[in-house]
Parts: sequence; C-alpha cells; structure tokens
Amino acid sequence: MGSDSTADSPGELLALIRDGRASTRSELSRLTGLSRSTITQRVDVLLNREFVYEAGEAPSSGGRPPQTIAFNSTVGVVLVADLGATHSRLAVADLSGEVLGEVSGDLAIATGPDEVMAWVLERFAELLDGAGRTGDDVRGIGVGLPGPVEYSAGRAVDPPIMPGWDGVSVPALLRGAYPVPVLVDNDVNIMALGEYWTRWRHRVDNMLFVKVGTGIGSGIVANGNIYRGQHGAAGDMGHVQVASASTTICRCGNLGCLEAVAGGAAIARRLTELGTPVEDAREVASRAMAGDPTANRLVRDAGRQIGEVLAGAVNLLNPGAIVLGGDVALAANQLVAGVRERIYERSTVLATHDLRIERTELGDRAGVVGAAVMIIESILLPSAVDAAITAAAG
Amino acid sequence: MGSDSTADSPGELLALIRDGRASTRSELSRLTGLSRSTITQRVDVLLNREFVYEAGEAPSSGGRPPQTIAFNSTVGVVLVADLGATHSRLAVADLSGEVLGEVSGDLAIATGPDEVMAWVLERFAELLDGAGRTGDDVRGIGVGLPGPVEYSAGRAVDPPIMPGWDGVSVPALLRGAYPVPVLVDNDVNIMALGEYWTRWRHRVDNMLFVKVGTGIGSGIVANGNIYRGQHGAAGDMGHVQVASASTTICRCGNLGCLEAVAGGAAIARRLTELGTPVEDAREVASRAMAGDPTANRLVRDAGRQIGEVLAGAVNLLNPGAIVLGGDVALAANQLVAGVRERIYERSTVLATHDLRIERTELGDRAGVVGAAVMIIESILLPSAVDAAITAAAG
Repeated sequence: MGSDSTADSPGELLALIRDGRASTRSELSRLTGLSRSTITQRVDVLLNREFVYEAGEAPSSGGRPPQTIAFNSTVGVVLVADLGATHSRLAVADLSGEVLGEVSGDLAIATGPDEVMAWVLERFAELLDGAGRTGDDVRGIGVGLPGPVEYSAGRAVDPPIMPGWDGVSVPALLRGAYPVPVLVDNDVNIMALGEYWTRWRHRVDNMLFVKVGTGIGSGIVANGNIYRGQHGAAGDMGHVQVASASTTICRCGNLGCLEAVAGGAAIARRLTELGTPVEDAREVASRAMAGDPTANRLVRDAGRQIGEVLAGAVNLLNPGAIVLGGDVALAANQLVAGVRERIYERSTVLATHDLRIERTELGDRAGVVGAAVMIIESILLPSAVDAAITAAAG
Repeated sequence: MGSDSTADSPGELLALIRDGRASTRSELSRLTGLSRSTITQRVDVLLNREFVYEAGEAPSSGGRPPQTIAFNSTVGVVLVADLGATHSRLAVADLSGEVLGEVSGDLAIATGPDEVMAWVLERFAELLDGAGRTGDDVRGIGVGLPGPVEYSAGRAVDPPIMPGWDGVSVPALLRGAYPVPVLVDNDVNIMALGEYWTRWRHRVDNMLFVKVGTGIGSGIVANGNIYRGQHGAAGDMGHVQVASASTTICRCGNLGCLEAVAGGAAIARRLTELGTPVEDAREVASRAMAGDPTANRLVRDAGRQIGEVLAGAVNLLNPGAIVLGGDVALAANQLVAGVRERIYERSTVLATHDLRIERTELGDRAGVVGAAVMIIESILLPSAVDAAITAAAG
C-alpha cells in the first residue's frame, strides 16, 4: 500500500512491463504488492486487448519455469510528421518507436495549412501502405511545426514563417482521416525529445537541445519532460543579446541578437561577403567540413557567440547535457569547440561540473523520432491505457 | 476506473479535501467513483488519525443534510528556519502553513554548522513553547541555506559564504532532537516557493523569483514546482554576463557579471564612491526611498542591468510572472522600472505577452513561508499520508 496504491490498474502494470521492471506475473506481484490472482486477472485484460503477449518461459531456478510477458509493440502504429520551413520528414513507427517507414520531401510550409495537410495525408497513406498497415492500425499522430505552438490545443500561435497558420488547429485537420489522439509541438521541442529519449534519459534529468540552422532555437528538457513555458514560447534563444555583438541589427529590430550574428543565414551572408558565395546553413557546413579555413573560422566564431548565450543558460538551468543539432552542427568540431570554449570560460564551476556538450547523433531524424516518442508516451500513459480498456469493455 | 484509479487511498482522499475539491462523503464518492461504503471506511481512517474532523452539516437541498469533513491543520506543526549569511528567521507553523510564532536573530552562518544548528534548536524549543506545543507535535522541518544545496540529501555543496558547511547533512544534525522528515533547499528557492504559493499559483504555472540583496540569485518555478537543475545549481543569475558592463571584474574572476555591477554590494560601493557613504544593500534601499537622487539613479541602472539578463531568461523560460525580492527590492519603484524597461525592450513579443513583473509582497517573510510550504506539501503527499497510516497500524 502507500505509494504502491497507484500501481494497481492494468495501465500501471503495462508501464512496469514496458519499462523492463517486470517480465513475469510474480515480479508484478512483488513490485505492486497485489495478490497473484489480482495480477493474473489484470494481465488477462492486457492479453485480451493485445497490449502484451506471452513471451515464453524464463530461466528457472528450480521448479516450474515462469511464463514471461512482454509489451506487444506491434499492436498498432503511430504516424509522425516533422514539418520544416521548406523540407519535411514523415514516418510510420510501431509502439516501441521503431520506424517502419520514412519519407522526406520539399514543400513550403508557407503554402498554407490546407495544402500542406493534404500533402501530409497522402504521405501518411503511402507510409501505411508500405508498412502493410491500414488506417485502423493508427493509434495516434505526432506533428512538429517550425514555429510557436500552443501545445494543449495543437495550434500554431503567431508563427513568423507560417502565413495562414495562425490559430489553425492541426488535430482538427487530421481528425476526419484519423479519429485518434494528435499531439503537436514546435520542431525544436520534438528534436530535443528525440535526442533525450534515444541517448540521454537514463543519464541526465535536464538537457538543453540547441538547433543551429538558418535561425537558432532550443528545446528544454526539465526533470525529464519538455518545458514549454507559459505560452509555449520557451527555448527561444535566437533573440537573446550577445554581449560581444551589440552593433548588429536583427530582423526583429533589436541589436545584437544571437541569431543575427551566429545563425546559419548570418554565417552564409558573411561567408559570401568574404568571397565564398554560399546559399544557406547547409552549404556553410559543407564548406567547413571540406576544410575551407574561412568557413571554419566563421563557424567557430558562431560557436563562441552561441556559447556566450549558453553560458547564461547553463548558470540559470544547470543542465546535465547540451546537445547541438541543426544544419550548422554538421560542421561539428568547430561549432562544438567554440561553444565549449565560452561555456567553460563563463559558466560557474558548479554548473559545469559533469556537463556534457555534444553534437546530435540522430541528425535530421531527431524530429521524427521525437514526434513518435511524444505521441507514444501519451497514448500509453497508464490512465490512457485504462481508459481505452474501459471504452472497449463499455 | 481509468485515471481515477490513483484516487482510492486515504491519502488521495485527504488531498481532495485539502484542495477544497470535496467536503462531503458523497462529493468524494462522485469524484473518485468509489462506493459510499469504501469512502466511509477510508474517511474513518483519516478521522481516527485526526487528519480530518467532522465540520458540521452542509446546507441541504432537501432530505437529511450531509456531514462535512474538513482538513485538521492543527493535528501537528512544522518548524522552519531561513538561515541567511548574517541574519536568520525561524518560525513554527500549523499544517495549513499558518505561522503560530516567529523569531529572527543575527548569527553568522560562517560560525559553522555545529554552533548554528545548536542555536537553531534553542530557537525551535522556544517557538514550540510559545505556541503551547511540544516536540511530539512536530511533523517535519524545513530549512533554507544561503548557498547551493543538494536537495535530495539536504546537504550544502561548495557554499562560497559558508565555511565548514561543505558536505554537511542538515537532517543528520536535527534528527537527534526531532526524528521527523527534514527538507533543505537554498534560500532563494524557498523564497520563490513562498511567493509562488501565497500569490501566484492559481494564476501562472511558471515564475521567476529574483533576489537582489548583497548578491543576485533567482528561484525558478517550472510547471508549479521548484526547478533545481542537475546539481541543485539552477537559478544562479549573479554570474551571467551583462552586455553593457563587460569591463567590470567580478569576485569570481570573470568580466561583467551581473552581481558585480547590479548587486547590493556593488551599488553600495558605487554610492559611497560618489560621496554618500553606505554600508550595505539595505542602506542603499533606504537612501533611495528617502529620495536621494544618486541612490535612485544607481538602483534604476541596476534594474536595467538585471533586466538585460532577465530579458534572456524570459526568452528562454517564458515565465508568467517575475517577482523581485531581496533588500534592494525595498526600493521597488526604481528597480522594477529599470527591469521592466529592459525586458520590454529586449524580450520577444510572445514571451512578454501577459508577463507580470512585480515586487515581492511577502518581503523578508518569503523564506519562512516557503520553507513551511516545502515541508508541509511533502509530509501531506498522498503517499506520505498512506505510509504514516500504515506505519501507525503496523
């Protein structure tokens, strides 16, 4: 009893099985304090609904070997879309987050919600088809958008680069085709979640993911969850002032914004001025990786300026890890070196104790992985599982 | 069932009663979905343990009027100590957080843990005596320290102004006298919690409390809880670089730290240099309040510099409120004006939408109020209540 009193629903038992904390009925009984007959009854509910399956015998320490129970990640799929300004990536994944099919394509988000979502629905249908699944298998949908999102409503809010999307409810646009839960967040938050879940969640509770692409944004993981702030605007690092760059004017009208000096677009402009014409952040990174000394110097300088702002964020948030992603982060060495230099110079000793500063490992795929984690963790919450079971029985 | 499955222990019922969500057995039954007989049984347990009492008849809408049940906040008390560098405040409070007795006194924290805690224990005994209570009534203790704290262990970690305290476990020093739960946090976090709980928790989920005293620190409320970061160092704003002050050397060795230009000690030094000799932050505030134009100008300038750093924190955290406390904040008008000026100039439109920027209302008492909230909310967690009931029965 006591703190175990919450662990007595089928959904809670499923959570223990998914986490790898229990794989037999007797382990479930030991962890929850519930009787074997109650456990058997509730596991039967999970078996009937195909949330779990009998996975064979466990090694025995004498006597009859116990039957193991495992999470059935194939019982359904989720659809995910990481929509960027001009480039998007979509995937279908099983309930363990394993991607069963993936596709990317170019489409301007500025085309507007109707056209973009029609395109998304076509891709979703193709992905399901390719994975040998149908619409009935879909349990939820996760979407990332390149702008501020009111998470609870799944709505874009005043997105600067998404004309026509302000106030548009993404779940409403998908509900006709898929009557399932839909969660929407901004693209940097889902990248942060993907990176955290894949690589960091067993090591740190607090992480900062910084995307250095055309602009600069960040996603904050606080106590294991994405932190969104009062209006979903948290993590907006691009317009924080850089002490050493207070004469550069930003598109927002202010002086010395980080994005105006260290974003991919700013570096590309500067590199072009210095005689190496490049189009965008990705080309800057290619030049740096190819050994262009000017590109490398500019990327390192950008790293230092990002590090200057991050030093303040490190003092304020005391994260366990900082992960750098986005197109410019492809030129990892110089960028990470610049960031590390300034953080270690400017942050307090206590805040940098054990701090890891690394490049993304998921790269372009962080968004779809994170969108899958977002929707899977939501539909498999104990309360959601219990509600689904009750609804099916009622 | 479903999401209600967690609401079926005596501790969970107590939480519903404390929150004001239920005051009769039938309301409890309706909210939890439990049968009347189960509710009656569990309320009896709470009555026996004196966590609740029968509070008389509710108005009837026909038929026999229902008996109301209320939380018994007098069933025990908590002791709290907000220990500052040179000045401390201690209190005894009932389980609703109402302060029954309060005392403050001067004692240098640098005297070391043994002497300080002996002094604290004497004050605790006097406070209990004054409130007509004994050690047996004490259910928990909350302590604030003026330095970084490893919250889970109740230990000071590398505290710069607390020689002799590094690694010292405060709970261990109190356990002999009071064998009850002891929670320890840093002083700014408990001030933030006191302010949040008293005035903001029903209005915003995310708040930043900034203490401008001799130095500068902050406490972060994220999703309704204190955010501490990976090593309990979160909120350390004092050593974030101010863009406009990059030539001033800080005691930490870096250039342009916020504390080195806008902390109470820095303002006092500057005011003295300009011909008005003052000792400390409190005197600076007195001068400003008395209308000294130089003091007012310096406080306003400090507000602008604090606002410059806060503008970045606002973009990053998107809080719903910023509350200014500490000795310098006594000179509220000028400080708040300077802070507002820079935040509205430098933060993004979305992040400042609805943002409240105000002075503390609790003043010097924020720390003891917050320490009481910290320990009360912990000992009345449903799992803690259930465990206490089980222990008493076993």
